[in-house]
Amino acid sequence: MARIADVNYSAAVLQWDQETYLPPNAANFRAGQLSSLSGLIHNLFTGEKTAAILKGLESNGTLTDHQKKNLELIKLEFEKQKKYTTEFVEQMSHAVSAAFNAWQLAKKENNFKLYAPHLEKLIGFKKKECELLGYEGHPYNAMLDLHEKKCTVAELDALFADVRKQLVPFVKKIFAAKQVDNAFFYRHYDHNKQWDFGLGLLQQMGFDFKRGRQDISSHPFTTTLSPDDVRVTTRINEKDLSEMIWSCIHEGGHALYEQGLLPEYYGMPLGEAISLGIHESQSRLWENNVGRSLAYWKGNFKHAAQYFPEELKDVTPEAFFKGMNRVEPSLIRTNSDELTYHFHVMIRYEIEKAIFEDKLKVDELPAYWNAKYKEYLNIDVPSDTQGVLQDVHWSHGSFGYFPTYSLGSFYAAQFYEQASKEIKDLPGKVEAGDLSELLAWLRAKVHVHGRFYTAQELCERITGEKLNFNHFMSYAQNKFGTIYDLK
Amino acid sequence: MARIADVNYSAAVLQWDQETYLPPNAANFRAGQLSSLSGLIHNLFTGEKTAAILKGLESNGTLTDHQKKNLELIKLEFEKQKKYTTEFVEQMSHAVSAAFNAWQLAKKENNFKLYAPHLEKLIGFKKKECELLGYEGHPYNAMLDLHEKKCTVAELDALFADVRKQLVPFVKKIFAAKQVDNAFFYRHYDHNKQWDFGLGLLQQMGFDFKRGRQDISSHPFTTTLSPDDVRVTTRINEKDLSEMIWSCIHEGGHALYEQGLLPEYYGMPLGEAISLGIHESQSRLWENNVGRSLAYWKGNFKHAAQYFPEELKDVTPEAFFKGMNRVEPSLIRTNSDELTYHFHVMIRYEIEKAIFEDKLKVDELPAYWNAKYKEYLNIDVPSDTQGVLQDVHWSHGSFGYFPTYSLGSFYAAQFYEQASKEIKDLPGKVEAGDLSELLAWLRAKVHVHGRFYTAQELCERITGEKLNFNHFMSYAQNKFGTIYDLK
Repeated sequence: MARIADVNYSAAVLQWDQETYLPPNAANFRAGQLSSLSGLIHNLFTGEKTAAILKGLESNGTLTDHQKKNLELIKLEFEKQKKYTTEFVEQMSHAVSAAFNAWQLAKKENNFKLYAPHLEKLIGFKKKECELLGYEGHPYNAMLDLHEKKCTVAELDALFADVRKQLVPFVKKIFAAKQVDNAFFYRHYDHNKQWDFGLGLLQQMGFDFKRGRQDISSHPFTTTLSPDDVRVTTRINEKDLSEMIWSCIHEGGHALYEQGLLPEYYGMPLGEAISLGIHESQSRLWENNVGRSLAYWKGNFKHAAQYFPEELKDVTPEAFFKGMNRVEPSLIRTNSDELTYHFHVMIRYEIEKAIFEDKLKVDELPAYWNAKYKEYLNIDVPSDTQGVLQDVHWSHGSFGYFPTYSLGSFYAAQFYEQASKEIKDLPGKVEAGDLSELLAWLRAKVHVHGRFYTAQELCERITGEKLNFNHFMSYAQNKFGTIYDLK
Repeated sequence: MARIADVNYSAAVLQWDQETYLPPNAANFRAGQLSSLSGLIHNLFTGEKTAAILKGLESNGTLTDHQKKNLELIKLEFEKQKKYTTEFVEQMSHAVSAAFNAWQLAKKENNFKLYAPHLEKLIGFKKKECELLGYEGHPYNAMLDLHEKKCTVAELDALFADVRKQLVPFVKKIFAAKQVDNAFFYRHYDHNKQWDFGLGLLQQMGFDFKRGRQDISSHPFTTTLSPDDVRVTTRINEKDLSEMIWSCIHEGGHALYEQGLLPEYYGMPLGEAISLGIHESQSRLWENNVGRSLAYWKGNFKHAAQYFPEELKDVTPEAFFKGMNRVEPSLIRTNSDELTYHFHVMIRYEIEKAIFEDKLKVDELPAYWNAKYKEYLNIDVPSDTQGVLQDVHWSHGSFGYFPTYSLGSFYAAQFYEQASKEIKDLPGKVEAGDLSELLAWLRAKVHVHGRFYTAQELCERITGEKLNFNHFMSYAQNKFGTIYDLK
């Protein structure tokens, strides 16, 4: 498994480089290299040697619980990977690279047609993948399971019904209330000062720069190149201070999870994150529950003001806090507030479900997208670049991924509520810039376990109950009720 | 071969990253990843599939001359690689990583003992490698052949005899002459301005930034991550302008060779550089014959002065030119002038020869090194960091590498003399900053051929004769005779 991990992480290095430093004309050969590595990984893992080792371990009576769990999870993955042919894996890798390049161009030129044939081809691969993998109930369940084990359409339909029933009317009330000001975010903020300020935020969270680094990329992400090499990227917009702040804290949250996994399980399930939903719970907890709290900015505003004394001279910590929690309809998911965010996710979920039900064709996507934005956000989409072309995910072949963003936020609210009960005066510590106890709590409750528990088991273990949307809802009502002065 | 190249270049990405951006504590896992990739490459190349393909092609009567040459060279490499076991390759990769880390620490702490056991182990591997590979005559010939095909101790002994007979007395005359001034190089030169100036020099040479990039590393190098992704690194010392200038132009010369190889031969010998000696001929030709010429700085001094008007206000293009050609005994090979440089190489050559003759033990190395520096350069070595620990090569397991530096300089002089005959008014073009005709000449004469010719064949094809030290000697006599006003 360590050997396979070596090649897996090597591919991650190539992908990291692709997003950060690759020269403009180098994409084609890089795509071939990644395709070859994915084929090699598949061959190594599904080969006879692995089968023989797994068989040998089955009859080994001396395994510890942790070893048994590793074995069980590896066998599941082995059975899954055996369903793919190496040819399919390599062809899909090529199709993804081509779709990614086409998407970049289509987005730049606001021309969905350039992307459509590649997306169609990729959807063909993904539908074939559903059949290869098998599923119960809805075919889209096979896609969901890739990112969030055991997650189903039935479960998500129920969850988003809650969103519609509770969050949609609450957001309507906010829209009707007096809007808060956030114009100060859009002054000019020097690139290098933002960079330094962001590094300070990561440092304060406990990001270990000896075992990781930060770079710039057009789409911020976190990637793990080994247990001792977890990298985040950020983007800096000199005309919007908030973009850098959120991407730093968000990716920092992902990175703390990865840096908290146990290196002795290198290449093993117990050294891996549970699921995308739990991963997102870590990034969202830091970004929203910590980073968008009044306590955090009561403490950190003075640091922002040290970097930007002129730009922020008429702003108070409270105004800074309110501004960053401004709720409003928006076109772009990644720039949306933490409430309407889930409407963006719901739209993508409904579109993906329709695609896998064969109810929606690729050339119908832009119009369908725009209609949904009108319906849920009452907003007119002026261009596909700001609409259906905005996200990278489909070009990566990632379907069933978006719902994990909402799951993550909801888990985060539930976990943070629990942390607030167990950690004495958490807001006071956050305000004092002492985040070490919170990190230690997350390490002990979430990080060190790797995949020993499922997402559901972990949630019950930590909070005593299953994922429950009410925790998010009451967090939202408390916080935004105060900000918008709702009765 | 393309498939194998994909993995080879993937390893190159990991190595590039290791030298540029790797977090401090990430070295161990990275070493494991590189070891796994080297094992995979070896398995892929020496496997039954390759053997079957090669056998099939042998009886194919329709191959073109270029295809035949590719096949011939691949078969040679296949036979060579078959002599190694995968275990040996992986163990050596691990030993190299350990030796590299130990060398870094030993150099930093000026403590040869920290490095000695690793170096000893590595030398053991290399001696075993000589036996695996086989050789005629001297065992060190097996090492030389790895970097410069067919190069032998007999040939190098003759070459360095020329150096001793002609260059040593000439340099003595220079030492006795009035020294030229270069103190202005050691003023304070701003990091960012140096960076921009260096990029301009690369641009002027014809480096294609769409198919490559430059980064910072502690030891400048060039690496190829694909035919469309050739990367150089430089180092910037604010207290020495010349370091950046030489590393930029030198690595730029290597990179132009790599960017001039034909992408259609991806993974094939005809898409590869001939040898390290020919590679070095390209870097040295740009660095010394072009970049240290009066014409080059008659043209480019004004650009330097634009970046550093204050620092260079009392300097003329002629003084700049003379300063950068100052000849003097020095401790560090990479900072030495282009004449005494070959004494540094000769010392390393003699040491390596003695090691492979079992005449020199690892713990005797520092004293032996210091004695040689006294003998050839009349200089006392004050510390191992500035002595036997200065070069990375041995820690990489690279023995037989150093002599190619001298070969490269001598080829460069011979090639440049020929280019000066064939290109009308080459100095005038260099002075005008128009280097395109020279690059086109190198492309046509050297780059596009890949490994179609051997180094010796290429030299005869271009210049009508074998490598001949007299060309370097007459270049040196002309240039330095003028600078030092020798009769």
